[in-house]
Amino acid sequence: MDQEINFLTFATEDLDAVRRFYRDGLGWTPLLDVPGEIIFFQIAPRMTLGFFDSDKFVDDLGDELPADLRSGSARGVTLAHNVSTRTEVEDLMTAMVRAGGRVLKSARDSAFGGTFHGHVLDPNNLIWEIAHNPGWQVDADGNVSFG
Amino acid sequence: MDQEINFLTFATEDLDAVRRFYRDGLGWTPLLDVPGEIIFFQIAPRMTLGFFDSDKFVDDLGDELPADLRSGSARGVTLAHNVSTRTEVEDLMTAMVRAGGRVLKSARDSAFGGTFHGHVLDPNNLIWEIAHNPGWQVDADGNVSFG
Repeated sequence: MDQEINFLTFATEDLDAVRRFYRDGLGWTPLLDVPGEIIFFQIAPRMTLGFFDSDKFVDDLGDELPADLRSGSARGVTLAHNVSTRTEVEDLMTAMVRAGGRVLKSARDSAFGGTFHGHVLDPNNLIWEIAHNPGWQVDADGNVSFG
Repeated sequence: MDQEINFLTFATEDLDAVRRFYRDGLGWTPLLDVPGEIIFFQIAPRMTLGFFDSDKFVDDLGDELPADLRSGSARGVTLAHNVSTRTEVEDLMTAMVRAGGRVLKSARDSAFGGTFHGHVLDPNNLIWEIAHNPGWQVDADGNVSFG
């Protein structure tokens, strides 16, 4: 697995407060801002910080979230790793299970964002999303855009 | 504030399991591995993912962690932003408060890592560490090392 995180996503109950703090207060430039849904900021080459409406965040994780995770240390945050094909999503998820991970949601078309993805828990119950996202573009300098 | 995260740190109750999963299972190379304390992996230019022993993680946050945060969405994770001087730590914390943040721990010498730092909560109660770390080195390609 490439040693890289492409998305760091936090659930938020107040997207407007996020916008006021990061954009208006700290002067950050959103990469994408969808009111009521999500705000993305690029915070490293090939890497994006996102704040996702908390109801949609839970919906995106699917129906299989165990009760112990809803209040556990992994609550409200996911790490994502993007790969180039749908097949690689499944292959990487298999490799992560072999390494000691646990499948939270098997690979499927996502509810949001037009991706094919699945979720795997690391030994801390930290949630990794493994995704193929045809609309995710990165140029040679690491600048991210959404097609 | 530069639009950049330098450290993403998760508390873990089982550092050995983290090592087995990321290093042995997924083939990642630790940037620094201090048994019983912390493991760092570089996951983007200028950016490091860390897993920090959970007792030490709590100690590092100090005595002022409000009870509601111990079980809130911010539990077990911090984002860090590094600056070049001790003065910049205090100036940036002031700017974050002006933007709507809340000081969790005022600027001081840290318990770990030889940094001068403080903690500020964003509107989600997500914890930002603002730090001046003289031992943190980044070369022109964004490769991180600890001096």
